[in-house]
Amino acid sequence: MTLDALKEQVRAANVETVARGLVISTFGNASGIDREAGRIAIKPSGVPYAELTADQIVITTLDGVPQDNRFKPSSDLATHVVLYRAFGGIGGVVHTHSTYATIFAQAGREIPCLGTTHADYFRGPVPVTRALRPDETGASYVEATGEVIVEAFRDRDPAEVPAALVQGHGPFVWGPTPQAAVQNAYLLEEIARMAYLTLTLAPGTGAITDHLRDRHYLRKHGAAATYGQ
Amino acid sequence: MTLDALKEQVRAANVETVARGLVISTFGNASGIDREAGRIAIKPSGVPYAELTADQIVITTLDGVPQDNRFKPSSDLATHVVLYRAFGGIGGVVHTHSTYATIFAQAGREIPCLGTTHADYFRGPVPVTRALRPDETGASYVEATGEVIVEAFRDRDPAEVPAALVQGHGPFVWGPTPQAAVQNAYLLEEIARMAYLTLTLAPGTGAITDHLRDRHYLRKHGAAATYGQ
Amino acid sequence: MTLDALKEQVRAANVETVARGLVISTFGNASGIDREAGRIAIKPSGVPYAELTADQIVITTLDGVPQDNRFKPSSDLATHVVLYRAFGGIGGVVHTHSTYATIFAQAGREIPCLGTTHADYFRGPVPVTRALRPDETGASYVEATGEVIVEAFRDRDPAEVPAALVQGHGPFVWGPTPQAAVQNAYLLEEIARMAYLTLTLAPGTGAITDHLRDRHYLRKHGAAATYGQ
Amino acid sequence: MTLDALKEQVRAANVETVARGLVISTFGNASGIDREAGRIAIKPSGVPYAELTADQIVITTLDGVPQDNRFKPSSDLATHVVLYRAFGGIGGVVHTHSTYATIFAQAGREIPCLGTTHADYFRGPVPVTRALRPDETGASYVEATGEVIVEAFRDRDPAEVPAALVQGHGPFVWGPTPQAAVQNAYLLEEIARMAYLTLTLAPGTGAITDHLRDRHYLRKHGAAATYGQ
Repeated sequence: MTLDALKEQVRAANVETVARGLVISTFGNASGIDREAGRIAIKPSGVPYAELTADQIVITTLDGVPQDNRFKPSSDLATHVVLYRAFGGIGGVVHTHSTYATIFAQAGREIPCLGTTHADYFRGPVPVTRALRPDETGASYVEATGEVIVEAFRDRDPAEVPAALVQGHGPFVWGPTPQAAVQNAYLLEEIARMAYLTLTLAPGTGAITDHLRDRHYLRKHGAAATYGQ
Repeated sequence: MTLDALKEQVRAANVETVARGLVISTFGNASGIDREAGRIAIKPSGVPYAELTADQIVITTLDGVPQDNRFKPSSDLATHVVLYRAFGGIGGVVHTHSTYATIFAQAGREIPCLGTTHADYFRGPVPVTRALRPDETGASYVEATGEVIVEAFRDRDPAEVPAALVQGHGPFVWGPTPQAAVQNAYLLEEIARMAYLTLTLAPGTGAITDHLRDRHYLRKHGAAATYGQ
Repeated sequence: MTLDALKEQVRAANVETVARGLVISTFGNASGIDREAGRIAIKPSGVPYAELTADQIVITTLDGVPQDNRFKPSSDLATHVVLYRAFGGIGGVVHTHSTYATIFAQAGREIPCLGTTHADYFRGPVPVTRALRPDETGASYVEATGEVIVEAFRDRDPAEVPAALVQGHGPFVWGPTPQAAVQNAYLLEEIARMAYLTLTLAPGTGAITDHLRDRHYLRKHGAAATYGQ
Repeated sequence: MTLDALKEQVRAANVETVARGLVISTFGNASGIDREAGRIAIKPSGVPYAELTADQIVITTLDGVPQDNRFKPSSDLATHVVLYRAFGGIGGVVHTHSTYATIFAQAGREIPCLGTTHADYFRGPVPVTRALRPDETGASYVEATGEVIVEAFRDRDPAEVPAALVQGHGPFVWGPTPQAAVQNAYLLEEIARMAYLTLTLAPGTGAITDHLRDRHYLRKHGAAATYGQ
């Protein structure tokens, strides 16, 4: 992938988070990685989405060191770097404060798999991280945010559940490409909204059975997928 | 009805589910049946709605066998086939994951008839199916989904209550034509939304009386209907 | 007022109920009265709003007898007639199934005066009628709907609280003109929405004090009003 | 700042409250102050926003005395005057009845700092005032509304928490300029909405830790801010 193509993908992904209603004000950022070329592309900090150009996208090394200092990268860059390092298969990361995903993060609750809409895209609950300790909100805060996400995936496959809720903060979502990550962020918001409504209608509702969940997930994902043309 | 007319009806019904906000991403499908000509028309699997053409609509026999293999039919085809066979009077079936109908399905609760808005179109509660057993989520999963709907209508007239909620999944809705099924899916979502709001405001709310329900239902339906011009 | 002016007012009021999101499908109707000329103008039954013309508006006597039979009047006509007879000062009536007002009707609960937004336009709670008895849902159902509203206003001034919730059904709203009735229906929906949200956030919330309520109501209404230019 | 620039700022701020969905009907007003020139500019009372011109903006002294009587000032003028006097650093005030902020005011509850979205803009809970006493809803009602806000800020910095909820009424919001006040009113509504959803999903949810709150607040505000370009 050329550098220009990466920048344009990341620009488009950032703009799409706004177009899909996942980001208000400047609460969010999307990035992409080109592992072969050894670079990460990410939104510049605090730039209004409407004015964002591919030229403003910040390019860094795989360790998150910017290649020039024309624009400051997103203040969440270090979280993205930790995720790219820990989750070898992902190509894009999106962070939003989308309403329903964020309220589960604020409530400190995972999003249970309450129906097949959820199971079609996330094979099990979307986890919430533990709260950060006081010593994790200092200079290393942004890295620590990534590390508690990785911690929540010790027993989970990030390819099968491509999102996490950072407690008291909001969702980080990923996928094979920046565009796929945006689509997952959109689907996450929809299933979070349905979960909120289900749980306020019927507070004790439990997850669907594993066999129904897998029947749906595996119809759309993996070697035996049958969905689509 | 010509084959082209059937295909166009089904294309339009699918597009309308999106236009009315009942379907996001590719979560949904609409079909129609021509019983005289012995064919069913249904959305192809996983094709974006914006690009859907009448030519892509898949034609099958009444047993759900596609007439050619240019496009794969919706993965829910077998559910539609079961409904057409069991409910002799219907001409169209729509499946969505519309938000409020789906949360009742996720909560495993029927939608009670809480007001005249409901009674104007559904003569009694919209039932929720029982959960599928593990042996029903294997190879026969899609047929089984239809069968639990039919089971829920043993003591009910599908013409008077043209919708069911598949537990943990979402609504299937029908009508005399594909267009009527879409309209019923739209009305179902509205009454589900009102029911959610009523039940979270006042959890113990019961159904309206049978006489008020029938007063409204029969004003718009049946031989003695007086509504409209 | 000329007959044409009355018809046009009523056509516009009906169309505005849809434009303001108060009416979906054909769930609603607006009427106006010219007491001097002795006529009521009302929406025809079941006609789509988008196609409604002033010529289709049905004209009746003050007793609700249509002057011709080109179009059937709204099936709720008799309710409007009862309200015009009982509430001498009103010039327009609007019936909707607007979501939040309707859910209070379904829950059988009045809308308490929880804040100054409410008090600016309604001097006290918006009442809910008693449920109709079985003998009131027969031939005289539509009149009975009007009568239970009037019953709820025995100790209330319909000029100060220009709306009622018919239990299990929805709101009827009025005002000095059809346009004012639509505006009141719009404000009713907004305060019903705020009341729903307040009561689900804090179920025990009580009404504001009478002195705060009157401070706001009387700033905008009555001889001592000071609001506006 | 020229008089014309002040008027235009205030006109634009009023129009933006409507464009951002914070104000329906005529429920709201925005003002600005030019402390050097000794004048306050505020919306005229009850004028529809769509027709508002800079020429209609009312100019008063710092004590709220209009400089001419072409238009009556907003009926909430005296509240704005009290806030400008008490909070020396602010340049604009906005009053709305925006839905979610208002329902916390109606419920008599502060908006707790439940997440980093809140902490990015408000350093701690948004307070609710005490209820007004009967003797405070007479002739001095509008001043008293300002005074209970000031009372709620005895132990708080209005620069760090630029909003208050007047109990039973709605939010007053401020900022260095009228435009900043509108932006704060918009952010307040978003965090109020998230707080409502969080508290109805998980009623006992507490505030995030002070260290996480300050980590976010101080990233965007104060001498050590690092956010943006």
